[in-house]
Amino acid sequence: MILELADFHIQPGREAEFDAAIQRGVREIIARAEGFLGWQVHKGIDSPQRYLLQIRWRSVDDHMQGFRQSADYARWREIVAPFFARPPQVEHFDLLDASQD
Amino acid sequence: MILELADFHIQPGREAEFDAAIQRGVREIIARAEGFLGWQVHKGIDSPQRYLLQIRWRSVDDHMQGFRQSADYARWREIVAPFFARPPQVEHFDLLDASQD
Repeated sequence: MILELADFHIQPGREAEFDAAIQRGVREIIARAEGFLGWQVHKGIDSPQRYLLQIRWRSVDDHMQGFRQSADYARWREIVAPFFARPPQVEHFDLLDASQD
Repeated sequence: MILELADFHIQPGREAEFDAAIQRGVREIIARAEGFLGWQVHKGIDSPQRYLLQIRWRSVDDHMQGFRQSADYARWREIVAPFFARPPQVEHFDLLDASQD
């Protein structure tokens, strides 16, 4: 299992619309991808236009080859990209350590 | 409950040392702070010198007023700061939505 962290900065004043859009996009589109294991989305307190989308995938390839090359990726982008103030920053991570909870 | 995301970039070649240092620093120092609720640390696949430390706090004040103003904050910095290649980026977030798992 790996973690994708997508760091989004959206246009000021569109937070409520984007709150709904990102939840819909993940639940309706990304969640049906092969190798999708779970997700969290957080919104910024210090930076109210910043959102962190964390998705757990079975592998980097499930994200980059499977989902990114699928027609669903274009559908996902149609839902969220109109809100972006700049290109998202997306990287992959391995879990090193965590508390038991 | 809020999330602190600390984004670290360390010096190349010091990953194994930092793996041990960050785990020790959280377990021995941060975990005893008032309002600390849990943590995860991830290391970069695309960027091997990048680490994400996620800490759940009861409130932003528990982190910024409680922990950051305590002597333990200096002890934590002594453990991790020698590895940094640049100043960490630290922000706070509220959970918007997540899968049930």
